[in-house]
Amino acid sequence: VDESPSGDPAWKVLRSSGDVLVTPYYRVRLDHLRHPDGHDVDYYVVSHPRKAVGIVALDEAGRVLMVRQWRHPVGRLIWAVPAGSMEDGESPEAAARRELREETGHEVGPVRPLYVYHPNVGTSDQEFHLFIGESARRVCEPLPGEIESIAWRDRAQVEAMIANGELGDGLSLVALLLWLRRPEGTAAPRFFSV
Amino acid sequence: VDESPSGDPAWKVLRSSGDVLVTPYYRVRLDHLRHPDGHDVDYYVVSHPRKAVGIVALDEAGRVLMVRQWRHPVGRLIWAVPAGSMEDGESPEAAARRELREETGHEVGPVRPLYVYHPNVGTSDQEFHLFIGESARRVCEPLPGEIESIAWRDRAQVEAMIANGELGDGLSLVALLLWLRRPEGTAAPRFFSV
Repeated sequence: VDESPSGDPAWKVLRSSGDVLVTPYYRVRLDHLRHPDGHDVDYYVVSHPRKAVGIVALDEAGRVLMVRQWRHPVGRLIWAVPAGSMEDGESPEAAARRELREETGHEVGPVRPLYVYHPNVGTSDQEFHLFIGESARRVCEPLPGEIESIAWRDRAQVEAMIANGELGDGLSLVALLLWLRRPEGTAAPRFFSV
Repeated sequence: VDESPSGDPAWKVLRSSGDVLVTPYYRVRLDHLRHPDGHDVDYYVVSHPRKAVGIVALDEAGRVLMVRQWRHPVGRLIWAVPAGSMEDGESPEAAARRELREETGHEVGPVRPLYVYHPNVGTSDQEFHLFIGESARRVCEPLPGEIESIAWRDRAQVEAMIANGELGDGLSLVALLLWLRRPEGTAAPRFFSV
């Protein structure tokens, strides 16, 4: 197929009505755009000033640390990898280490970037930054309140969760699918973000 | 580890302030919750009455059909699999077939469910329903306006896009990572949603 029309593909911003909603976590603004074909479009953008991070934390046996949390938007408990939002002045890697420590009481050795992606690029500018680290070890108590339970899962258990459709959290699904692509026992992840 | 505190893990809804924003595509409401440990929490929920769908459409050579679109929230062109929102009264599968036809002018043979997940479960109830279909063939012109270009990509090309961090769209990343797990040339996908 390979059909590439000529011309500037950008949808130009004619004007913005600014924020129509401000929450502590994101804003929604309404932009008025001109499509390249000449028609005008109203577009709501969910803007996340704080990027989110998640981490695949592995122990010496190659198992991954998972957490179960109540997720109010879907009204149920969901298994996930440790994840959360970056704080002011924090690097993505530092945020991933903090979330791991707060949610599980664990630290890992060197951390490597695994991927960066937009979870819902039609609606939002949110970015998820994924990391992977090994030699996870317990160093403190988890912070109380956020996590309902914590568990180690080996590759076969994660494969089974995916096969059974049980991994409903997109960030964890991406992180664990990328982890499963690594040859077992290798230290270097196969994929990096750019 | 395997720490499972006892007690009801649900965050109870004490009351809702209702919708604080209504757009044609989603609503945002503010709920007032009681955490199981007794403290109260304000929680904004982005609610999507329309679920979204995406489809991995393969030709006889095992290549996947991809589309490039301007994505205003991130201000750039993004490669993706054909995807969009369900319309009233439409099944997820019918929506996937419609989006494929509208965005690429193609139809596929039997369609199988690939996965169902929440792209951003901390913020939103949005569900993405992924499908896979084979024997893609051109049947009409794509609808003008939404798609900047269309291209076939083989497995090696998709592997390279992932390795280079070029696949920034979460829905497509999940769909294509699941597709790459299938042994080459098999008709049945390895994974299904439940």
